[in-house]
Amino acid sequence: MELINSTKAFDGLQQQYRHSSRLLNCPMVFSVFLPQDKEGDTIRKYPVLYWLSGLTCTDENFSQKAGAQRLAAELGIILVVPDTSPRGDGVADDSAYDLGQGAGFYVNATQEPWRQHYRMYDYIVDELPQLIEMHFPTNNRRGIFGHSMGGHGALVIGMRNPQRYQSVSAFSPICNPIACPWGEKALGAYLGADAQSWENYDATVLIGRAVEHLPILVSQGDQDQFLGKQLKPHALQIAAEASGYPLKLEHHQGYDHSYYFIASFIEEHLRFHADFLLKIDA
Amino acid sequence: MELINSTKAFDGLQQQYRHSSRLLNCPMVFSVFLPQDKEGDTIRKYPVLYWLSGLTCTDENFSQKAGAQRLAAELGIILVVPDTSPRGDGVADDSAYDLGQGAGFYVNATQEPWRQHYRMYDYIVDELPQLIEMHFPTNNRRGIFGHSMGGHGALVIGMRNPQRYQSVSAFSPICNPIACPWGEKALGAYLGADAQSWENYDATVLIGRAVEHLPILVSQGDQDQFLGKQLKPHALQIAAEASGYPLKLEHHQGYDHSYYFIASFIEEHLRFHADFLLKIDA
Repeated sequence: MELINSTKAFDGLQQQYRHSSRLLNCPMVFSVFLPQDKEGDTIRKYPVLYWLSGLTCTDENFSQKAGAQRLAAELGIILVVPDTSPRGDGVADDSAYDLGQGAGFYVNATQEPWRQHYRMYDYIVDELPQLIEMHFPTNNRRGIFGHSMGGHGALVIGMRNPQRYQSVSAFSPICNPIACPWGEKALGAYLGADAQSWENYDATVLIGRAVEHLPILVSQGDQDQFLGKQLKPHALQIAAEASGYPLKLEHHQGYDHSYYFIASFIEEHLRFHADFLLKIDA
Repeated sequence: MELINSTKAFDGLQQQYRHSSRLLNCPMVFSVFLPQDKEGDTIRKYPVLYWLSGLTCTDENFSQKAGAQRLAAELGIILVVPDTSPRGDGVADDSAYDLGQGAGFYVNATQEPWRQHYRMYDYIVDELPQLIEMHFPTNNRRGIFGHSMGGHGALVIGMRNPQRYQSVSAFSPICNPIACPWGEKALGAYLGADAQSWENYDATVLIGRAVEHLPILVSQGDQDQFLGKQLKPHALQIAAEASGYPLKLEHHQGYDHSYYFIASFIEEHLRFHADFLLKIDA
C-alpha cells in the first residue's frame, strides 16, 4: 500500500493511498480520513464508515465537496472513500459515462469483457475492509453510505451483509435498478440478459425479502432531475412497507442531485451512523 | 445579469451568474450564496462577505470545497465569490499559471497587453459590489476575505478602503508581494518596472502606513509549501507591530496550503466576520 498524499484536516489526516487489488486485478486508489493525527494515542480504535460514490466519480469528489471530515473528526469515525470502478489502460471501458470505468455499479460482473476486472461488490465487502482493518486503528464496527449509484451500492451491500455493518444510509440512491434505464443498461452488460441474476443487486427486491433488519436512512431531494426516471424511492418505500422493514426515507423540498444536497445533510447522516457505530454494547 | 444555475443548499440558494463587466471589458462569472430562499421574507437584509480566490481558481473552488455555506446560512451572511481575472479569447493571457487569466492579482494593470482588461482591483471594490447591492437583499455592511493571491487581494483592498469594509481576513495570504517571486513577476508585468507603483498593492507596506484600523485575522499553516518563499506572514507581522496595527495572526501546526486547511478553519473566519458584520450600531 503506497501513500500518495497526506494533508492535515480538522485535526486529523486526509490521505490518499494506492494499492494493488487482487480481486480487481489492477491498481486502485482510495481516500481515507483519520480523525486525529495526535501521536501517542495508540489505544483508541475507530469505527469505519465507507462512502460509495456515484457515476463518473473518483475517491476525490466526496473528500473535497461533502464536508464530512468536520463531523467525522468530532464523532471519532474513520471515513473510507473507494473509487467507483477498476481503472487503467488494460481495463475494459465504454465511451458512455454510465458504463465501464467510473460506473462499476458495485456488482461482480459475469460477462465479457467485464468479468476480468469488474468485481466491485467483493472489493467493497471483502478486500478493501481487510486492507483498511490491517493498516488503520479500527474496531469491529462498520457503516456504509453513498450517493446515487453509490447509494444503490450502499443499500445492496448493507442489506446483503447485515452481520458486517451496523448502519446504512444513502443520498438519492438508485433504488430499483432492475427497472430503470441506468440499471437495466449496466446490469445487462455486467450480468447478462437473465434479469433474475440482477435481483441480488436491487435494493427494492432485497428490502422486500430481508429477514434481518439494519437501520437505514435515505435522503432524497424533490427537485432531483433523476428522481422519477432513475431513482424511484417510492418503489423502495412500498417494498419496505410491505415487508415491514423500518426504512427512514426523508424527502427534502427544493434540493437536487448535486453535492450541495449532500453537504446540506451530511451532518444528519454522520450523526445517524454515529448512533449505531459508537454505541457501547451493554 | 444572467442566472447560469441555482441550487438549493443549507436552506439557501447557491447561484452562479454571468454579467458583462464594463470595467474588465468582458463577460464575468461569479457565485453567490443567499442564506435562505424562503418567500415572503422581504424585510431582512444581509451583510455581504466577499471571497477572493487564489491562483488558477474560478468562482467554483471555494463554493464547492470550503464548506462556508453552512455557517453563512446559520449566521445570515451573503457570500460572493468572483473569478480571479478577466477571461475569454480576446483577453491577454500567459502560458504560466501565475500570470494572465486565473492570476489577476487584484490590481489595475497599467501595462500592455494587460491594461485593456486587467482591472480586478476596481472590479472588486466598485463594479461588483454595485451589482450585488442592486440585485440582492443587502444592507450596507461588507467583509472581505480570501486565500493566497486572494488573501493578498483581501488585505490590500480592505486596508485601502476601511470605510467600505467592516472586517478583513485571509488564509495563507501573499503578504509581501513586492518581495516574493509570484508578486515580483505579476506586479512587474501588470504595473511595470517602477517598483514604487507596486507598494499600493503590498499588504506589508500598507499595514505599516495605515491610519484607520480594520479588524484583521490571518490564518497560516506551518506546513504550507509556499510559506517562506512566497507568503512571508512574518514580514506582515513585523510591519503591523511597528505601526501598532492590531493584526490577529494565527499559525496552525501541521496544515498546508490546500482547501482542507481552509475548510478546517472556515467556521472561525465566518464567526470572526459575523462579529463585525452583524453588530448592531449602538
